[in-house]
Amino acid sequence: MTSLDDLPLRNNLQGLTPYGAPQLHVPVALNVNENTHPIPEAVARDILANLAEAIRSVNRYPDREFTALREALARYLSEGLGADSILSAENIWAANGSNEVLQQVLQAFGGPGRSLLGFTPTYSMYSILASGTDTTWIPGARDAGYELSPATAVSEIIRTSPDVIFLCSPNNPTGTPLSLETIAAAYDATDGIVVVDEAYAEFAPLGTPSALTLLPGRERLLVSRTMSKAFAFAGARVGYLAADPAVTDALRLVRLPYHLSVLTQAAANAALAHSVEMLAMVDDIRGQRDRLAVELVGLGYAPHRSWSNFVLFGGVADPQETFTALLAEGILIRDVGIPGHLRVTAGTEKETSLFLEALARLGRTDRSRQTESTRAE
Amino acid sequence: MTSLDDLPLRNNLQGLTPYGAPQLHVPVALNVNENTHPIPEAVARDILANLAEAIRSVNRYPDREFTALREALARYLSEGLGADSILSAENIWAANGSNEVLQQVLQAFGGPGRSLLGFTPTYSMYSILASGTDTTWIPGARDAGYELSPATAVSEIIRTSPDVIFLCSPNNPTGTPLSLETIAAAYDATDGIVVVDEAYAEFAPLGTPSALTLLPGRERLLVSRTMSKAFAFAGARVGYLAADPAVTDALRLVRLPYHLSVLTQAAANAALAHSVEMLAMVDDIRGQRDRLAVELVGLGYAPHRSWSNFVLFGGVADPQETFTALLAEGILIRDVGIPGHLRVTAGTEKETSLFLEALARLGRTDRSRQTESTRAE
Repeated sequence: MTSLDDLPLRNNLQGLTPYGAPQLHVPVALNVNENTHPIPEAVARDILANLAEAIRSVNRYPDREFTALREALARYLSEGLGADSILSAENIWAANGSNEVLQQVLQAFGGPGRSLLGFTPTYSMYSILASGTDTTWIPGARDAGYELSPATAVSEIIRTSPDVIFLCSPNNPTGTPLSLETIAAAYDATDGIVVVDEAYAEFAPLGTPSALTLLPGRERLLVSRTMSKAFAFAGARVGYLAADPAVTDALRLVRLPYHLSVLTQAAANAALAHSVEMLAMVDDIRGQRDRLAVELVGLGYAPHRSWSNFVLFGGVADPQETFTALLAEGILIRDVGIPGHLRVTAGTEKETSLFLEALARLGRTDRSRQTESTRAE
Repeated sequence: MTSLDDLPLRNNLQGLTPYGAPQLHVPVALNVNENTHPIPEAVARDILANLAEAIRSVNRYPDREFTALREALARYLSEGLGADSILSAENIWAANGSNEVLQQVLQAFGGPGRSLLGFTPTYSMYSILASGTDTTWIPGARDAGYELSPATAVSEIIRTSPDVIFLCSPNNPTGTPLSLETIAAAYDATDGIVVVDEAYAEFAPLGTPSALTLLPGRERLLVSRTMSKAFAFAGARVGYLAADPAVTDALRLVRLPYHLSVLTQAAANAALAHSVEMLAMVDDIRGQRDRLAVELVGLGYAPHRSWSNFVLFGGVADPQETFTALLAEGILIRDVGIPGHLRVTAGTEKETSLFLEALARLGRTDRSRQTESTRAE
């Protein structure tokens, strides 16, 4: 049988294994930060009506400029910004998931001889996207508790002179917030491209200003978002960004023509018209996220501050053992490879309860073992 | 205002302009080789039913392995191959259009320090995909009439030692066929990856063997297809390929996780279940393609032999003038940049008639001018 080693694979891919969170069919899946709420029936009906219309012209290529979608996304972001909004369709770009948006950014501004700085631990796709575009990946350091101060960000930028910087805000997999001060300081410290990845921005406390408010006068600043989380649209694959129109012109040079299908455009347009109902779920999720933080402390764990729809918690004696024990009860969470930690998505109230109850049952063993070991000291 | 020159764009993109066939709203669009037949009502209903089901889980990430789609594609290709079929889901890969499939192939097997050979004139995206993946593009030569003999293919391969070879069969924009002998000879002449791009394969004369029949024992051979043309699915963006399972393992290293949306998978699965009805349109189109070839000769033009759903024809005194004159009558065809030539997609019977009638009206001027000029010699 032919194996990968028999093929002329490029050197930097040899020995790698594919990205892969396990896709297991379990009753309670809280592992990949999906929005676990199905979309409301009325919204589903409108999406389907748009899709029915789109199918009538599916024999034709889609609008390569996805104009209606860019307009709808500009409207949605502008609603969040209020009266000061300066965003129009010209500022907007979109692709099949924010992974593709970020890949296009690296195709345009990274590549051979160029480098990408991220602050680890951070979203695991950043280094994979760097490798896929032959951009040198630079893992930068964070402060204690996975926070990132202006001083630390600036000193890492000066030390490494990156061409592109990805700032994950709030950060994945830690959930920790990022201040506008850090973003502005990072921007001023570089001549390169600064991307603020706001995939989870809608889960921040109400009234938190987005990096979108920093866009005016900063033509190298890009703010990326996704419909996967707040809009419960992970299956539809819609990521987007806002930036100076010159940036979207640059992305047109590297995007594959007709990259967004007529189905994707139709479904996203319908969902965005229902942003108020779609975002109502965000409030519920924020509530469950805050509940996780409180109850995990009660169970003796050490959750990190989270502005996202998930919580990273420390104090886990053996993450692999706890992961496996929860899985045996039909509950899938994520071991992100940080020693002593696990990550859990905030689900519905019921899913969150099932997770906390199962963890509490395991925890008794864990805690008693800790108590034993304390006594033994 | 900020311009592209103010941004730190990578060097190899500076001065480029985006890919862009004009997207004009005209009564008769025969410019981008779409299947101009809308999909049958009954098929549209089944697609919509599948989409309705898919929306129920759109809050979750799609099946990253798109297993049902790979099975459906393997079944479809196997039907065409008959009893000798050796294809299963393990041999199949898919992405958002064959452009993305080919980009992934270059990400896995091309890249910096590696080269891609194509035989020009050929599909214009090949060189753009090479540039986007930092693969060196090598334009190889063809024989007279844009055909490609085994001897010419082999001598170009020996001369240029490419890492990857793209063979477009039938070739776009010329429509000219490619023999299995040339493909087999090209494969034997290289240690690199050989991709046969069969985007238009379904339009070849009935009984023409596909390069799929060459797959057994050739682990570096990849045969790509698309649902855009034969399946009237350009708007849905579904390209795919068949190859040794080791090749699909390689592509898993570079594909973005969850690259195929749940909507794309659902729509394609439904369409593939109706392959017989979908392909009935191919017979009509083949008939109009053959009609174009005959009637263009009658009008004094020189069409090239075509096994695709379009015809490239020479003998055009001033392509830009003819293009513009047709556009003024609501008929959009394509100036592919080959001197003295234009390319036209075979549409419905009515669209094809409208094109031929309009061209005949223009042609009278053209021909009389030629007659004048002949007399003047």
